[in-house]
Amino acid sequence: MTLLVVGSTAFDTIETPHGNAERCLGGSSTYFSLAARLFTPVRLVSVVGKDFPDEHKTLLAERGVDLAGLEVKPGDTFYWHGRYSADMNNRETIEVQLNTLGDFAPKVPSAFRDSPFVFLANGAPATQASVVEQMDQPRFVVADTMDLWIENERDGLLALLKNIDGVIVNDSEVKQLTGESNLIAAGRAALELGPKLVIVKKGEHGCFVFSNYFHYALPAYPTERVVDPTGAGDSFAGGFMGFLANCDQISLANMQRAVAYGTVTASLTVEGFGVDRLAHADRAAVERRYHELMQFVSGV
Amino acid sequence: MTLLVVGSTAFDTIETPHGNAERCLGGSSTYFSLAARLFTPVRLVSVVGKDFPDEHKTLLAERGVDLAGLEVKPGDTFYWHGRYSADMNNRETIEVQLNTLGDFAPKVPSAFRDSPFVFLANGAPATQASVVEQMDQPRFVVADTMDLWIENERDGLLALLKNIDGVIVNDSEVKQLTGESNLIAAGRAALELGPKLVIVKKGEHGCFVFSNYFHYALPAYPTERVVDPTGAGDSFAGGFMGFLANCDQISLANMQRAVAYGTVTASLTVEGFGVDRLAHADRAAVERRYHELMQFVSGV
Repeated sequence: MTLLVVGSTAFDTIETPHGNAERCLGGSSTYFSLAARLFTPVRLVSVVGKDFPDEHKTLLAERGVDLAGLEVKPGDTFYWHGRYSADMNNRETIEVQLNTLGDFAPKVPSAFRDSPFVFLANGAPATQASVVEQMDQPRFVVADTMDLWIENERDGLLALLKNIDGVIVNDSEVKQLTGESNLIAAGRAALELGPKLVIVKKGEHGCFVFSNYFHYALPAYPTERVVDPTGAGDSFAGGFMGFLANCDQISLANMQRAVAYGTVTASLTVEGFGVDRLAHADRAAVERRYHELMQFVSGV
Repeated sequence: MTLLVVGSTAFDTIETPHGNAERCLGGSSTYFSLAARLFTPVRLVSVVGKDFPDEHKTLLAERGVDLAGLEVKPGDTFYWHGRYSADMNNRETIEVQLNTLGDFAPKVPSAFRDSPFVFLANGAPATQASVVEQMDQPRFVVADTMDLWIENERDGLLALLKNIDGVIVNDSEVKQLTGESNLIAAGRAALELGPKLVIVKKGEHGCFVFSNYFHYALPAYPTERVVDPTGAGDSFAGGFMGFLANCDQISLANMQRAVAYGTVTASLTVEGFGVDRLAHADRAAVERRYHELMQFVSGV
């Protein structure tokens, strides 16, 4: 089934211990789409400036991403410049130019409103809520968020959480959101806020999945060569939502498999700069890693 | 089969956000023994001072720990005073008095030398090596170590690693030991140093197990109430070695199960101050948690 994503499109300049990349294609909607398209058709709602080149649109369109919701506005595309620490567990933002993303008010094209699966990439809770309002009874809506919104837009975020099916956060965010310092307690407390599903990402330590019916821990895919962590979270979300959208039903077992597909999809992303590795991945590469990850979890 | 542990015995003063404990029974050999005795008979080699009370000896002896190797020397018992951070992921040492541990030269009683399983708790590599030399062809020897020895006694540690079966380290230690910043690469590199088995502890994130035959990731038991992390690592080692010593054979599958038993044994320890919870645990409590952990790993 089709899957809608609403999020940013960007030019990224990235510095890691393995090298640099200048003004490469980035943004949450981009990573999400290139991950999710490995499993299901994707509809993208985002905004770029007049400087956004056709080659990037072609790259996405050729991979099954419907760009009817990609608004092109006067001005430049959102720009981000970041630098990773030696162990790549931290990054600093060198420069941000919001440009056309600054007043992004997503408009879901009428042909997209019947999308049963919806992913709200990181953004202001009010903006995310405006997307939900534009949809015709979606089956499964999941949102990402970040420390900025937990801190500054708490009421809006709590209202959104009551109205969606799942949330994907990282370990520090779920602690900040719930006020619990223990990660297990925090995950359970987040379920009380409304969503049926809480996925807590822990980077190289994998993720926890909390629902009222099962708790699940999954390690990260055991990659030895992380060259650029940018987009790992959105690729995880894309693999998760893409796999689930392609399933016959949203069962607990399928949600669990989807988390593993999200994990391996993210592992492809971090092995290249920007979207390079992800854009050139195919379903066979994903399946190979899925089986390796299952082996890593099951051991002997 | 019997299991020998060589390590410290201590009085610990512990401060955590949940309260304080003054001069309680501690030390690596104590936590290890109280964990391992849940599975198999334990022989302890350690040193204390004249101030070590009979009640502590009784506590250990009543739980199947053979104290024939507990040397009592003139002077006081090793003393440690530590304070944990608010999230308990860091601790500072307030005071250390080495006392009788300062010149500890472990002497393995002749009746202990046939122990097939041996755990060398954290200590100087030369001291650990001296224990191996005193043993009659042990079947399975595992060592713990720490940053101090990796930094200052590297040659001695590398010599020891060539001569033992397994090593248990934490994530920062395995990176320091191998010079690899990626944890998977570090674990594999550690195997090249000699041991057939490398267990990397990641605290609340569980552990990785590396061997030439399988890699395995296991999350921590999902406890919501950590009151004192002291001794978690030695309890993990005790559960691991204790379970394995009680198996018919040292197969890969048994090593994998042993890692899970180590994990749940450590989860009991951290739910009480000092050895309180661990000393009062029984095998049934361990088995309940083992099944909960397997559920957490397998999900639906």
